[in-house]
Amino acid sequence: MKKFIIIPDSFKETMSAQEICRIVGKAISRYYPQAEIRSIPVADGGEGSVDSFLAAMDGQKVFVDVKGPFMEKIKAYYGITADGTAVIETAACAGFPMVKGRSVGEASTYGVGQLIVHAAAHGCGKIIVGLGGSCTNDGGAGAAAAAGVKFYDGAGKSFLPIGETLDKIAGIDISGFCPEVRMAKIISICDTDIPLYGPSGAARMFGPQKGADPAMVEKLDRGLKNLAEKVRKSLGRDVSELPGSGAAGGMGGGMAAFFDSKLQSGIETMLSCVHFDELAKDADLIISGEGKIDSQSLRGKVVSGVARHAKKLGIPLVAIVGDIGDDIAGLYDSGVSAVFSTNRVAASFDEARKRCREDLALTADNLFRFLKILKI
Amino acid sequence: MKKFIIIPDSFKETMSAQEICRIVGKAISRYYPQAEIRSIPVADGGEGSVDSFLAAMDGQKVFVDVKGPFMEKIKAYYGITADGTAVIETAACAGFPMVKGRSVGEASTYGVGQLIVHAAAHGCGKIIVGLGGSCTNDGGAGAAAAAGVKFYDGAGKSFLPIGETLDKIAGIDISGFCPEVRMAKIISICDTDIPLYGPSGAARMFGPQKGADPAMVEKLDRGLKNLAEKVRKSLGRDVSELPGSGAAGGMGGGMAAFFDSKLQSGIETMLSCVHFDELAKDADLIISGEGKIDSQSLRGKVVSGVARHAKKLGIPLVAIVGDIGDDIAGLYDSGVSAVFSTNRVAASFDEARKRCREDLALTADNLFRFLKILKI
Repeated sequence: MKKFIIIPDSFKETMSAQEICRIVGKAISRYYPQAEIRSIPVADGGEGSVDSFLAAMDGQKVFVDVKGPFMEKIKAYYGITADGTAVIETAACAGFPMVKGRSVGEASTYGVGQLIVHAAAHGCGKIIVGLGGSCTNDGGAGAAAAAGVKFYDGAGKSFLPIGETLDKIAGIDISGFCPEVRMAKIISICDTDIPLYGPSGAARMFGPQKGADPAMVEKLDRGLKNLAEKVRKSLGRDVSELPGSGAAGGMGGGMAAFFDSKLQSGIETMLSCVHFDELAKDADLIISGEGKIDSQSLRGKVVSGVARHAKKLGIPLVAIVGDIGDDIAGLYDSGVSAVFSTNRVAASFDEARKRCREDLALTADNLFRFLKILKI
Repeated sequence: MKKFIIIPDSFKETMSAQEICRIVGKAISRYYPQAEIRSIPVADGGEGSVDSFLAAMDGQKVFVDVKGPFMEKIKAYYGITADGTAVIETAACAGFPMVKGRSVGEASTYGVGQLIVHAAAHGCGKIIVGLGGSCTNDGGAGAAAAAGVKFYDGAGKSFLPIGETLDKIAGIDISGFCPEVRMAKIISICDTDIPLYGPSGAARMFGPQKGADPAMVEKLDRGLKNLAEKVRKSLGRDVSELPGSGAAGGMGGGMAAFFDSKLQSGIETMLSCVHFDELAKDADLIISGEGKIDSQSLRGKVVSGVARHAKKLGIPLVAIVGDIGDDIAGLYDSGVSAVFSTNRVAASFDEARKRCREDLALTADNLFRFLKILKI
């Protein structure tokens, strides 16, 4: 019996990783109806990450009452996979669509902290937090507060810092930090390497698209810098230059500082969670993919991440992608056996986007039909 | 030892079939350095057809003094393949680039007839005449005259009809037809199915692009109609509705009427000339291709023509193409194992054309690298 593993990234702006798994899986079943097919849609930390993990690992969604980005009452969710890992996405309680005219400077990640506490209190020893798609810029101070961290202003008064008041933090006390959360292993998924503050930090890189005007961007940047300084003083940690600390409005830095969380890419996290090497060692073919592949881009992380494992295991890996960049020799070296583009006609991206699902289905159909004819 | 057969059409407006053979062959040699590679660039009957046959079958070019389209003296050529077949292209002595401001109504295929006579006189028992790329609309009357056919006007005077005087033909006498030509088996290659005259005939379909104004188009159409009527009367043949009789300004009809020539596609002709079934029966893979593939288009003739043979032989056939049309299910049924597009990025045809050679090379490289990894 044949065994196929489908482990794609989403195609940005066109298809989710889960859709891709479904479409490719259907093509495989057409030619190999008896085959074992394992679908692992890779989460990027943004909206849909919980569903990706649940699709890859089985499990259930837990719904909890928490605070929304402006401390309003909302119903949010997280996932618990079959092996007891909690998967939380920031977008579920501090997501960009929740802004509704309010300012990024006012938004809090408090609800994310509540989900973390809830998961830890319910026995999840491993907690994955997806950082993508946030509407916040509070450096994770809200989440930390929900887990028991106290922030004080210059007058020694306790307060809940938000983006626009991060610069008021004068002291931090972590003595009341939730012990169950302290015991849990926490991993944060981020798909950016930006630092906490500065010219390429969270506020300057993502503040404007979250609605901050230039003055607010400066204020948010100063706030994150102050948070980093007070963290250094009170906790003895320097997270300001940590790659990814600027993710989700500085929540990457807050996760590292307060939750002792590693920051890593979705593909690294997924590969380890699904025990990929064990799962793939008897596979006949691995299929990965992403919207655009090339040797340099960060967006190459999923395929190249899978490729390193495929190479070590000696399993052929096919990448099905939207566009193929100019220099992909390095990808072949890293373990990619073949790359097939879904582009079937010479047409612009606007046209290609409209037909992306059909084109992917036809590309996958062509591939598995061919492999069947070749008696693979 | 592996055996590969490369048998593509040209990619219209981008690459000749010979270029495609070279590029694909290079990719094969990279991964299968010991392989036997047979390259068969398919001729479409136009310019380059002689070279295609010589590349596929070996042989030599013969240069001959003949008449050009306006009865000027020119040096033209034809090919004699290793098995003694002559290959003539109309474009060599009545080609579109030879017009130089003269009218299509004045142009003659006389030189083509001279090449046919020359080949027959030198012992070629099989003569292939490519009809593409002509600047003429004389219904092949010039070629027929060169082979000994006499045309008479209403006054009983012998003359050499050209496009604009076809309507003056009152009688035809074939008693002086060259006996060597009569003995030879003559096959004409055309890649169009249009009839001799009428709304979709030679003059109306191709006259304008050969420079004929509306009045001239009508005159040429009337002339072809008159030629057909006089052929019917004198020779007892009706070629007016024969598919392809309108090819090369009606030369298709003239070849059928005077030279007893079959009209057929380049791929049919090539497959039989190279004894394809014998050649391919021990091949591991056949590679074909064309600029755009789909189920309906005439331009699908090369791949689908090869596919029928591949299917009968049970040999996998890969098509490498520019664009893949919407409905290709029928192509798979006809014997195509897989179709790969050279489109690697979502971009317009203008952009794709610029990078077509590199894209083809990369597409072929990807395919043969993959097959090698799969241990095919």
